[in-house]
Amino acid sequence: MQIEQDTIIAPATASGGALSLIRLSGRRAVEIADRLFRGRRPLALCPSHTAHFGTIHDQDKPIDEVVATLFLAPNSYTGEDTVEFSCHGSSYILGEVLRLAIEAGARMAEPGEFTRRAYLAGRMDLAQAEAVADLIASTSEAAHRIATHQMRGGYSSALDKLRDELLSLTALLELELDFGEEEVEFASRTQLKETMHSIGREIERLKRSFRLGNAIKEGIPVAIVGAPNVGKSTLMNQLLQEDRAMVSEIAGTTRDVIEERLTIEGLPFRILDTAGLRSTEDRLEQMGIERTRQTIERAQIVIWMVEATQLPATAPFTLRADQRLICVANKIDCAPDATLPADWIALSARTGEGIDRLCRAMCAVVPTEQEEQTIVSNARHYEALNTASEALDGALRGIEEGLPTDLLSEEIRAVIHALGTITARGVILPSEVLAHIFGHFCIGK
Amino acid sequence: MQIEQDTIIAPATASGGALSLIRLSGRRAVEIADRLFRGRRPLALCPSHTAHFGTIHDQDKPIDEVVATLFLAPNSYTGEDTVEFSCHGSSYILGEVLRLAIEAGARMAEPGEFTRRAYLAGRMDLAQAEAVADLIASTSEAAHRIATHQMRGGYSSALDKLRDELLSLTALLELELDFGEEEVEFASRTQLKETMHSIGREIERLKRSFRLGNAIKEGIPVAIVGAPNVGKSTLMNQLLQEDRAMVSEIAGTTRDVIEERLTIEGLPFRILDTAGLRSTEDRLEQMGIERTRQTIERAQIVIWMVEATQLPATAPFTLRADQRLICVANKIDCAPDATLPADWIALSARTGEGIDRLCRAMCAVVPTEQEEQTIVSNARHYEALNTASEALDGALRGIEEGLPTDLLSEEIRAVIHALGTITARGVILPSEVLAHIFGHFCIGK
Repeated sequence: MQIEQDTIIAPATASGGALSLIRLSGRRAVEIADRLFRGRRPLALCPSHTAHFGTIHDQDKPIDEVVATLFLAPNSYTGEDTVEFSCHGSSYILGEVLRLAIEAGARMAEPGEFTRRAYLAGRMDLAQAEAVADLIASTSEAAHRIATHQMRGGYSSALDKLRDELLSLTALLELELDFGEEEVEFASRTQLKETMHSIGREIERLKRSFRLGNAIKEGIPVAIVGAPNVGKSTLMNQLLQEDRAMVSEIAGTTRDVIEERLTIEGLPFRILDTAGLRSTEDRLEQMGIERTRQTIERAQIVIWMVEATQLPATAPFTLRADQRLICVANKIDCAPDATLPADWIALSARTGEGIDRLCRAMCAVVPTEQEEQTIVSNARHYEALNTASEALDGALRGIEEGLPTDLLSEEIRAVIHALGTITARGVILPSEVLAHIFGHFCIGK
Repeated sequence: MQIEQDTIIAPATASGGALSLIRLSGRRAVEIADRLFRGRRPLALCPSHTAHFGTIHDQDKPIDEVVATLFLAPNSYTGEDTVEFSCHGSSYILGEVLRLAIEAGARMAEPGEFTRRAYLAGRMDLAQAEAVADLIASTSEAAHRIATHQMRGGYSSALDKLRDELLSLTALLELELDFGEEEVEFASRTQLKETMHSIGREIERLKRSFRLGNAIKEGIPVAIVGAPNVGKSTLMNQLLQEDRAMVSEIAGTTRDVIEERLTIEGLPFRILDTAGLRSTEDRLEQMGIERTRQTIERAQIVIWMVEATQLPATAPFTLRADQRLICVANKIDCAPDATLPADWIALSARTGEGIDRLCRAMCAVVPTEQEEQTIVSNARHYEALNTASEALDGALRGIEEGLPTDLLSEEIRAVIHALGTITARGVILPSEVLAHIFGHFCIGK
């Protein structure tokens, strides 16, 4: 556990509400708070986890009537002495309280510094600390679930399991080294390969989950694609009516792709309405179609929409393996006798018929058992998994090529290190890395 | 004291911060909180003014790790049992906590309902309750000072003093009534008139203070007026450099008057740069000048700017008695030998010479002893003072005209009632009036 010298202060709530919460943390937090705060008795004499009504004063001038809540080390968020002032939400009052605390010896906290201190005090590992920022940013049930799972350590324990398996392997390998020239083989190379393949598959699964995890964090991109006038915009409007309250219009980066946000069953989607796809000589229309192809490229789900009476043989685009295609036959109300392949959804964007089935198909992109499953949603973790994956491939090649035990052990240690950087358990990360991670937090957390 | 049946809930902080504070108040607050919250033990078993770490659950699904702080009646803001949850500032979490509490029996609080309950529980009078909203809205030291003075009851005690004097007068008058036909005169009519005149002067002073009080709340409007090219915009820029951090551009309601906000020595100003004043046949320019005249009309301070070499005899506009004129001779750097009347300020808007003196003159519009003085800043109070003033005039006319004692007493009771509506002490206000007052508060206060 590292001890920070400075006592830090920052507003923990956004400005503009009825109340502001100001958080003061560090060795001198209680002493500094008592210089500003006049309650029935000094906070220094009060027990932890108690709330006190009083007044913040600048010399003899009353600034605000507040409630001060006291959390003594180690039983606070940061693990340090902490005082929280609940003030009236005026920008003037907020400014004065910060000024007075700074004059009394505190300094403004950097973004994420409270959580950084919680991490440095050993109250959470790095992946848990990063989940705090994701939790605050979560606007949908799915994003919240991933962040909660990670914050509560479910994610870390999945990684720990992999690390433990790898540590057992190296222990066996390093035991062989102790026997020096005797050429003992404690770790059967076949079994070693098998275990490492199994770990590799788990790392691959985690890596694959990143695209989904990231999509859930940012909103799962869904492209509605089809010929002009097939009913794409009608479908978009129909979808938005499903949950109008959660909708907000986002100004698109491209002129002709319209993007709307929508939450279905707790999953956040970004619906992308595209320009119609068809062969054309028109230069401007070609450009629009090119944009549609780029949109398909970045979509997680592609809704391919055709008219129920004119089902074509194949889609006029190809998807990657990790993308989901949903085929939709629209205007079914005008063609009630149309026969469709089993996996096609019969839809009337106009009347809303079939919308439920489409929504279920969209939601099915997220595994229902996902609470049990660990989903990677953090780009830094994804990079670490890539590094681990490469090191693991190296180790496997090493076994094939009969690499000496000490070098093989090195390779596996590289995998362990890469995985370790995710939670930063058993790994010391350079302070620049920590500064980068916590620099993306908001002030006051 | 009235007892409210419902238990209410609302976020007390703005959305978008690291944390959200959610406040639950009412008879069932603790019971409802315990349905959501799992800590080391139920909140129902915890003493008042204690903070508890735990988890908000929806059935078995964890929603967030929170701190719950308990304030038991009557020692809470509302005077009722209150639980405050400090959650992570995610819109999803906020929505879930509100939903769960509402499912458990709470309802969403109306704007200002917490403060309304505090008022109904007798924890503050109406003027104090209204000051809470002003305090939250205060962005300058002066606005904060007025709100603090009012919230801490200084304002109410000034009004109580007036009411007490009037009550003594009516007591004497009504004593006369008891003696019926005997024509006793306990209250000397001359002394009565004198006391009422003195009360009238105090009411007039309070009424006059409203223009300033309102200006401090909204920003004191300062018009910079003068001939074209005399240096008005240069002065505006020079003023803004004084305190650039506090500046924000407000889109004007008129095209040609530019408005900027600026705080000097804790006083909020709205600086209005106007179109140049001169005689012209140009129709468009005449319209601009007409706008300038309207701006002068609504200004509290008018800075009249001329060139130091060409001092005119009189200003090309007239001001009301409650407006302050500051005469400024600009471009003094080009006319160092110019002789000015004593009350003129020699200025160089370009170099900044004389700006300090101008700022001091602007700040002098607010009495320095204002902390001692009661300033009216609330339009409802101003209206009540007008009503009181009219009733007082009626009573004075009554004395002149030898009005019978019982009718005179009636007139004075009308003054008492009008003053009483400000604090709502000794006066029961219709619930529509209360609904109107608290309807302007923010949610969660």
